[in-house]
Formats: sequence, structure tokens, C-alpha cells
Amino acid sequence: MTAATLTISSRNYSSWSLRGWLVCRMAGLDFETELLSGNDASTRAELLHLSPSFLVPRLCHGDIVVWDTLAIAQYLNEIRPEAGFLPKDPVARAHCRSIAGEMHGGFINLRSALPMNIKARHTRFQIFNGARGDIDRLVTIMEECLSRYGGPYLFGEAPSLADAMLAPVCSRFVTYAVPVSAGAAAYRDTILAWPLMQEWIEAALAEPDEIEELDMEF
Amino acid sequence: MTAATLTISSRNYSSWSLRGWLVCRMAGLDFETELLSGNDASTRAELLHLSPSFLVPRLCHGDIVVWDTLAIAQYLNEIRPEAGFLPKDPVARAHCRSIAGEMHGGFINLRSALPMNIKARHTRFQIFNGARGDIDRLVTIMEECLSRYGGPYLFGEAPSLADAMLAPVCSRFVTYAVPVSAGAAAYRDTILAWPLMQEWIEAALAEPDEIEELDMEF
Repeated sequence: MTAATLTISSRNYSSWSLRGWLVCRMAGLDFETELLSGNDASTRAELLHLSPSFLVPRLCHGDIVVWDTLAIAQYLNEIRPEAGFLPKDPVARAHCRSIAGEMHGGFINLRSALPMNIKARHTRFQIFNGARGDIDRLVTIMEECLSRYGGPYLFGEAPSLADAMLAPVCSRFVTYAVPVSAGAAAYRDTILAWPLMQEWIEAALAEPDEIEELDMEF
Repeated sequence: MTAATLTISSRNYSSWSLRGWLVCRMAGLDFETELLSGNDASTRAELLHLSPSFLVPRLCHGDIVVWDTLAIAQYLNEIRPEAGFLPKDPVARAHCRSIAGEMHGGFINLRSALPMNIKARHTRFQIFNGARGDIDRLVTIMEECLSRYGGPYLFGEAPSLADAMLAPVCSRFVTYAVPVSAGAAAYRDTILAWPLMQEWIEAALAEPDEIEELDMEF
């Protein structure tokens, strides 16, 4: 058995940590989770995007070091092809990759204006136009997938890489009470009820609030 | 032969279009390049990141549609494993994926403050601290790879996916006369002399200046 450690920053605030953890669990990897302390100055700098002095999530697996959520997912997809990160059908497979890539590289407005915060609830949150465009696009992605592949996950019966990538978006929809279409709402609820997501949320709620005061962009 | 079309937005301004085109050429794909007109209102909205109404670069290959640069690269890596996007050694392979992923998801300050503009030259450009942190991190990535794998490309003798991802950064270093270390400067010059890069730059210089006036974030 090769030892594996996933280093994450915060369960409550770090959407990339959540995605990285989800793909490790989906791959059936046996790993320890190491949580960086929010009291550490370099952690705070990293969390505030002030300094890229270290990179999380980061997976160490034997002598392999891989950081960045999508790189971790590709690595796991290679060593655990049976995990089913991607649909087998080539057209759906390209579609799934596109959504994962789009989520990874885009939606800057959503990420900065509505940072993930699992513990918080904002019932009258004002969503500015830039973030609204991002939300509309995400709802379109959800609706298209549900209609094409039949749900309840984006690519059908089982969670895929695209679901891991969109999971923090579903959490934000709850935190900021974002009004979405019926299809997107059903998908949001599917993701929140996903046992892995439940496990993460429970751990996030139990996490001490060391960095509560910080205004973060994720 | 399956027909393939790569849709791009601008050769001069769009760093993602450059990356998408590079990986298609590296894969030896036989494809047409379709350039969206900068005079079109939805193109302008997209280029200004106002509206995600369409997504470029986008590759149509037979009945496969794939957008997002990294998704295109993964698709090509799957259908053309001989293209050598990733090093064969597992540790270097994970490293290459991490750099490609980090470039894809990060460096927001660099992307917004120093947008790619192949035609322009700014000799006394003021680099603010946020972008400086991004540049320092990129120089570290370059130096580490050159030292570990011997250059002239990031992972040795031949260009990899990581080089395609960092190519627009090298172009920005020239446009904004960014002072970098000797190693990073040598790497920048290697990328600019890369025949595929030369071909793209020549085409960019010949492109009409339809959207010159716009203040864009890439």
C-alpha cells in the first residue's frame, strides 16, 4: 500500500480543497487529510491569494507530488481508470471534460463575489450582474446535462468529475439563497445529499472558525 | 479523415486561443481554424468577459465538441497518445500536469494586469504587487523545471503541455518588458523561437486591429 496524503486549507472556505478531496474519495484512494492551520501566516496569505508560497490541494502519493484539483483528477483517472471520473461515451466524455475545464478556469465573478462558506446563510444577498452571468451559465450547464443524460447527476446515474467540480457551486447556492430553475434546484439538492458531500459538510461544520474574519476569494 | 475545426477569438489578444491552437498542432491534428469576428457584438462581449454566450477555444472533431483549453488537451492526449503532451516518467508527468493545471486556474492578477497583446510593446510598464507575485511564481516554475529536466523546454528536449500553457506568459514577458532571471529569459526565448509560436505570432501580426480599443482581461 502506497502512503497518500492530501493537504487542504479549509473545509469551510476552500472550494478547491473540497473538489480535490471529492476526487480522491471517488477514486477510492486510501489517504490521510492534512489540514493547514488557519493561524499560520503563510496559510492566511495563501487563503487570501496574497502569496502562492504553497499550493493546495496537494496530493502526495508515494514519490508522486501533484497539486491543482484538475491535475489531481487526471492523475487519479490514470491510475484508477475504474473510478469512472469520465463517461465512457466519447461525446459525453468530451462534454464532461469541457464542463470540468470551464469550471476550473472560469467563473471568476462567482468565485470572488460568492465565496464558498458552508457554515454561513445569507438570505437577502445582493448578487451583482457579473456574478449573475456566471450563475446563469452554470444553471444552463446543469439543465443541459440533466436533459441530455437524464440525471440525477450531470452525466446520469453516478457522480462524475463534472459533479465534483460543481459541488462547491451547489453549496454557494444554499449559502447565498441563490434563486435557480427547478432543474438546477433538484441538481443542487442531489449534490448536497451525496454521501461524500454530507461527510465533508459535517467535517466543515465541526472545523474551528480560525479565519472567520477574513474576506476571501475562492 | 474526420473533419476538425478549432474556433478561436483573436490571435493577438486571446491567450486561451493560442494555447488551444498549440495543443491541436502538437497533436498533429488536421484542422481548420475559424476566427470569430471582433466586430460581432457577442464576440466583443465574450472577449471582454461580459458574457459567456459562447466558449472559445472550441474544437469540433467529427461529432465531438470540446471547449476549454485543458479539456481539448486531455481529449487530444487520449486520441493521440503519441503526441507526447506529458512526460512518460510518472513523477515528471504529475509535475507537468500540476503546472498545466496551476496555469489554467490561477494567475488572475497577471491575466488581468498584463493581458496578452502580441503586437504591443510597453517598455516602462508598471507592474503592481499582485501581478509581481504571479510573475515570481512563474519564474520559479521555469527555473525549477529547467534545473530538474535540463531544458530547453520545461520538461526537456521537446515541448510538452506545460509549454503550451506557459507560451502566452512568455509573450507577455516581451510585451511588457518584464525583467526576469537569466534562466527564465532563456526559456522565454526558447518559446518565442518555437516554430509553432513563430507561426502564430506571424498570423497575429497580420490580424486586423478590430478590437484594439478594448481594455481586456485574459
